[in-house]
Amino acid sequence: MNVYDKSIELHTRLQGKISVENKLNIQGTEDLTLAYSPGVAAPCIKIYEDPSKVYDYTIKGNTVAIVSDGSAVLGLGNIGAKASIPVMEGKAMLFKRFAGINGFPICLETQDTEEIISIVKNIAPVFGGINLEDISSPRCFEIEERLQDIGIPVFHDDQHGTAIVVLAAMMNFCKLTGRKMEDLRVVVNGAGAAGIAISKYIAKKDIETKNQRIVKDIIVCDSVGIISKGRADLNSVKKNLLEFTNKENFEGSIFDAIRHADVFIGVSKAELLNRNDIRTMEKDPLILALANPVPEILPDEAYEGGAFVVGTGRSDYPNQVNNVLAFPGIFLGALRAKAPRINLSMKFAAAEAIASGIQNLSRDQIIPPVMDESIANRVADAVYQVCMQS
Amino acid sequence: MNVYDKSIELHTRLQGKISVENKLNIQGTEDLTLAYSPGVAAPCIKIYEDPSKVYDYTIKGNTVAIVSDGSAVLGLGNIGAKASIPVMEGKAMLFKRFAGINGFPICLETQDTEEIISIVKNIAPVFGGINLEDISSPRCFEIEERLQDIGIPVFHDDQHGTAIVVLAAMMNFCKLTGRKMEDLRVVVNGAGAAGIAISKYIAKKDIETKNQRIVKDIIVCDSVGIISKGRADLNSVKKNLLEFTNKENFEGSIFDAIRHADVFIGVSKAELLNRNDIRTMEKDPLILALANPVPEILPDEAYEGGAFVVGTGRSDYPNQVNNVLAFPGIFLGALRAKAPRINLSMKFAAAEAIASGIQNLSRDQIIPPVMDESIANRVADAVYQVCMQS
Repeated sequence: MNVYDKSIELHTRLQGKISVENKLNIQGTEDLTLAYSPGVAAPCIKIYEDPSKVYDYTIKGNTVAIVSDGSAVLGLGNIGAKASIPVMEGKAMLFKRFAGINGFPICLETQDTEEIISIVKNIAPVFGGINLEDISSPRCFEIEERLQDIGIPVFHDDQHGTAIVVLAAMMNFCKLTGRKMEDLRVVVNGAGAAGIAISKYIAKKDIETKNQRIVKDIIVCDSVGIISKGRADLNSVKKNLLEFTNKENFEGSIFDAIRHADVFIGVSKAELLNRNDIRTMEKDPLILALANPVPEILPDEAYEGGAFVVGTGRSDYPNQVNNVLAFPGIFLGALRAKAPRINLSMKFAAAEAIASGIQNLSRDQIIPPVMDESIANRVADAVYQVCMQS
Repeated sequence: MNVYDKSIELHTRLQGKISVENKLNIQGTEDLTLAYSPGVAAPCIKIYEDPSKVYDYTIKGNTVAIVSDGSAVLGLGNIGAKASIPVMEGKAMLFKRFAGINGFPICLETQDTEEIISIVKNIAPVFGGINLEDISSPRCFEIEERLQDIGIPVFHDDQHGTAIVVLAAMMNFCKLTGRKMEDLRVVVNGAGAAGIAISKYIAKKDIETKNQRIVKDIIVCDSVGIISKGRADLNSVKKNLLEFTNKENFEGSIFDAIRHADVFIGVSKAELLNRNDIRTMEKDPLILALANPVPEILPDEAYEGGAFVVGTGRSDYPNQVNNVLAFPGIFLGALRAKAPRINLSMKFAAAEAIASGIQNLSRDQIIPPVMDESIANRVADAVYQVCMQS
C-alpha cells in the first residue's frame, strides 16, 4: 500500500484523529456539583469580576483554534471547509504532540474576508491563540493583519511557519559556508503566502538584533516570471514586494533569475529545475525545493548540478523544511507569556532557536529533524524570553 | 470548604476541565506522513469528491459545538462569553462522560442574533450537531428556529433538555397516581426558555404517538403574574403562549394560579412558595421546584403542605430534574442516525425512554438518578429508532 492508501485506512479506522477528553473522571454527583452546577458558578463569577482570571480557570491559556476556510489546502487548492478538516485535525495533533497544546479545528463555510475576520473575533474568548491555516493569498494577508489587535496572537502559519524554518536553514547555510546573509543573492519562486513571507523575513532588519539577516539581493518570481516594475498584472501584495526586492529591475523567467544566485527557494511548482539549471547558479548554492509532495528538483539531481546543500519538504530526504519545527514552540512561548500578538522579534528568535538546535552542522543537517522533541521547547523558551524583554 | 470554594480549588488545579487528545501516538515520520502531509491529501480529496464522506474520515460524526453568548448563564444572567466558559467546559464533560461525544465550547463575543446565526452556520462543517446553551429569551427561540435547516441538529438545551425531563417526570407522576395527563391542571412559573418549552411540550399533540400527553389546562406565570389576554406588556413569544394556555383567561398572581392546580412547575424564582401555598392546590400535587441552586420551595416544606411528589434541580434531594438525563442520549441518537434536525417525535421518544428507565416507581423515584449510565443509551436508542422510522 502506498502512503495515500495507508492514510485512507488510518482515517477510516480512527473516524477523527483527535478527541475531547475530560481531565476529571466524573464518578458521582459530588464531582458533578463541582465541575458543573452549582459549583461552577464560582469560577464564572470570578471571571466576570476579573476577565484575566479566564486564564486561571479555563482551557483558554493552552488552547489554539486552527482556522481555515479551505481555500488553499496543501497543494490541493480550494477544496472547501469539509475537505480541509483532515488537515486541520492533523495540525491539532502536531500542536499536542510537540507542545502539549489543545488545538481545535474551526473550518469555515465562508471565504468572505469580512465574515472570516468577524467570526475569528467573535470566537476568540475560549482560545489563547489563533492559527490561521490554508487561506489563499492575498486574502490571508489582510485577514491576519486586521486581526492583530484582538488581544490574543493570530498567526498565519503558511506565511510564518515556513519562513521561520527557511530563515533558520539560511542561517546555518551561512555558518557552514562562511558566507554572510547580506552577500547572498536569493531567488524565491512562488509569490503566495509562503514566498512573500520568506522574502519579507530575509529582507527586513530586526530592530532587536543584528543586521546579518538582511539579504540585499532578492528576486521573487511568480508563475509569469520575475516580479518587476514593468508588469501590469501584479496585485498590491506583489507590488509591495518591489519596495525591497529586484532593485535592479531584472525582467525574465525563473531561469533568468537563478543565474549566479546563491540560494534558490521554491515554494510553488513541482519539477521546475534540472541539474543544468543548477549549474547556472553561483558555486555551491543552497537549494530549498519545498513544493510538496513533488519538489522543484529532487536532491540527487540538484547535487549532480553542483548544489552544496539541498532541502525539501519531504521526510524521506535530509534537511526537511517543515513548519512543525516552528509553530508548536512559537505558540507555546506566546501562550506562556500571554502575549497579545507574535511580533517579528519573536519570529526571529524562533528561527535562531531552530538554527542553533543542531550540534554538528553538516550538509545533510542544516535543519533539525522534525521528530526532535527538544526543538519546540527551545523555541518556546526563546519566544518567551523575547516577550518578557519587551 | 463549601461547594463553591471546592469548585474554585478544582478549576485552579485543572486550568481547563477538558483537553484535546490525539487518537494516534505520532512516534515517527511515517505516522506524520499518514496523519498529516502528504498522506492526509487522500481523505481530503475523497471528501471533496463526496462531502458525505466527511463522516467517515473526520471527527464530525461524533462532535458537538456547545455555543453560548453568555447572556443567560445558570442563574447568573448576562455575564458574557469569557465568564461562561467554565459552564460550557462542564457541558463538554457531560457529553463525553454520558455519551462519549466530543463537546467543544464556542463562546461568542457577540450577542447579536444575526451574527450568532451567521457564525453557527459558518462553523458547522466540523460539527455533527450544535448545542445552544445559556442564550437569553426571547432571542434563543429565533436563533434556534432559523438554524433548523443547516443540515445538522441545532438544539437549545435550556428549552428542550429541561422540558423533556419534566415531561418524563409528569408521565411517571401520572403512572404512580393513576391520573391522566389530559385531566391535569398545570401551572408553570417562569416564561423564559425552559418555561415556554415545557408549556409547548405538555400542550402539544405528538402526531406519532398517543393523545395522553395533551394537557388541556395550563397556566403560565412570569414575574408580573398570570399571562393573560389583557396584559399589554407581553412579548410575542409570551403572546403565542395564549394560543394554548389559560383558555379561561384567568388573571392574577402565581398564588391565584396555583389554587386547585395538580402540578406546579417552577423554573424561575427561589423561595417563592411555602407549605400554606401548597395547601391551596389539589390534593396530592406534583411539585417540580427547579430554580437553581435555591428552589421555589424545599422538599420538606412542600411535603408538609401536602405534596405527593417533589422534584428539584438539586443533587442532594430525590427526584433531581437534570437535563443531563436528556441531551447526551438525544445527541448520540441523532448523530448515529445522521439526523439533519431533532424533531418533536425524537424529543417525546427521549422523554418516554427516560420515564421508562425506572424499574420501581415510587414517590422518591419518578426520575432516574443523574449518574444512571444506562439512560443515555436508552435515550439514544429511542431517538435513533424514531429517526429511522421517519
